[in-house]
Amino acid sequence: MSLALDPVLVEPAFRLVARTIEDKILSGEIAPGDLLPSEAGLAEKLGVNRSTIREAIRVLEQNGFVKREAGRKKLYASIPHSGDISKRLTAAMVLHQVTFEELWEAMYALEPAAAASAAHRSDAEDVQDLERNLEATRKALKDSTSLTELDIEFHDLVARATRNRAIQMARMPISELFYPPFLKVMSRLNAGERLLVAHEAIHSAIRDHDEKRAREWMEKHILDFKRGYELANLDMATPVDMPEK
Amino acid sequence: MSLALDPVLVEPAFRLVARTIEDKILSGEIAPGDLLPSEAGLAEKLGVNRSTIREAIRVLEQNGFVKREAGRKKLYASIPHSGDISKRLTAAMVLHQVTFEELWEAMYALEPAAAASAAHRSDAEDVQDLERNLEATRKALKDSTSLTELDIEFHDLVARATRNRAIQMARMPISELFYPPFLKVMSRLNAGERLLVAHEAIHSAIRDHDEKRAREWMEKHILDFKRGYELANLDMATPVDMPEK
Repeated sequence: MSLALDPVLVEPAFRLVARTIEDKILSGEIAPGDLLPSEAGLAEKLGVNRSTIREAIRVLEQNGFVKREAGRKKLYASIPHSGDISKRLTAAMVLHQVTFEELWEAMYALEPAAAASAAHRSDAEDVQDLERNLEATRKALKDSTSLTELDIEFHDLVARATRNRAIQMARMPISELFYPPFLKVMSRLNAGERLLVAHEAIHSAIRDHDEKRAREWMEKHILDFKRGYELANLDMATPVDMPEK
Repeated sequence: MSLALDPVLVEPAFRLVARTIEDKILSGEIAPGDLLPSEAGLAEKLGVNRSTIREAIRVLEQNGFVKREAGRKKLYASIPHSGDISKRLTAAMVLHQVTFEELWEAMYALEPAAAASAAHRSDAEDVQDLERNLEATRKALKDSTSLTELDIEFHDLVARATRNRAIQMARMPISELFYPPFLKVMSRLNAGERLLVAHEAIHSAIRDHDEKRAREWMEKHILDFKRGYELANLDMATPVDMPEK
């Protein structure tokens, strides 16, 4: 039997250290906000070089498990921000050449469920925020850039009103890619009015806590996205692009 | 006006370098599989220290944008593996104390859509793989550990048959947390038979390309998950745990 390890199975020390600390945060042994030992302290405790600790901390910082105050050396345990992870999923979808059709199918599952859930759980503040969005949308019907931003905001507000982080995290990377290309189509078709009618109906159903009506209108609205795409003679099988920021 | 930069706004050099390379991969300027310049070459090209390049590459490697052959120094551009990103989202949901109810609501949106889509797109191989899974499930009705694994596999096979990466990526981190705790309940309730009947009905609907029937049976099946949870007098509002591996 050979004593040599298969090189593929050898994990760099810094990664093992990063994973050890990550696991302690995930298991709750270290709570978010807890002060971590210094680099020197960690090196001694874990029996590795200080440079290994430094690399492990870079990885943990990058992944949101460790934060430090600007310009300070003190390290704190932290919770990764779901928005940062979502951006990576968005990137992965672009690199894997996911098509608009795939995105559409996912949104057709998620958005009506989100609307129903929002109708169930929304409070007065959610309804007011939606109203502010509608007011701005009415004024932006001829400005396709503003209309895009307001459309994305409307759907994000509905998602926020669900109080459901699983639905929010599932739809975040998809909606990032879904709405921008479509609005280009919508503006060509001059479909702002039609979008507004749907948003108004969804808003009133959420306000009235009418789950069934909220779901049905959102379903119609997402079907409209597909029809618009087809009416503009665009190919649903085209891979999506990274949105311009 | 002060010339001093707000320390919060100063991004470490290694992170800027990592982002520069990441952006080139995302935009397609560097294709997956392309050989990257050496550490020394990158340091010269980007006008930074070699130690900065080294840290940037650690981050890129960790995030799946750079790969190297085991034991070699050559660096290749790569596409992040969606499974790795998904694991981070799973961790984020645990840390944010997402409840079983939130997960359930997301799965109630995604799984019936996945079943309908699988019925639309499945081929003979998908159907055979589902059959093999059912065969093993029939033999495991009294073994709750195997039953859990087979249940997760069944739903993963349905997701694979959708050919829809957006749906697959959206459900991956949720299903990771959803099925294991529930099966503990199911085994207490001795509900393996009921699970098998649902899986058989979903399989036959997918085999027959009957989208409506596949969707309806999956809907019933996911509703059953909730009923089982309630029958076992468990609280849907309890935060989910990290699954044991």
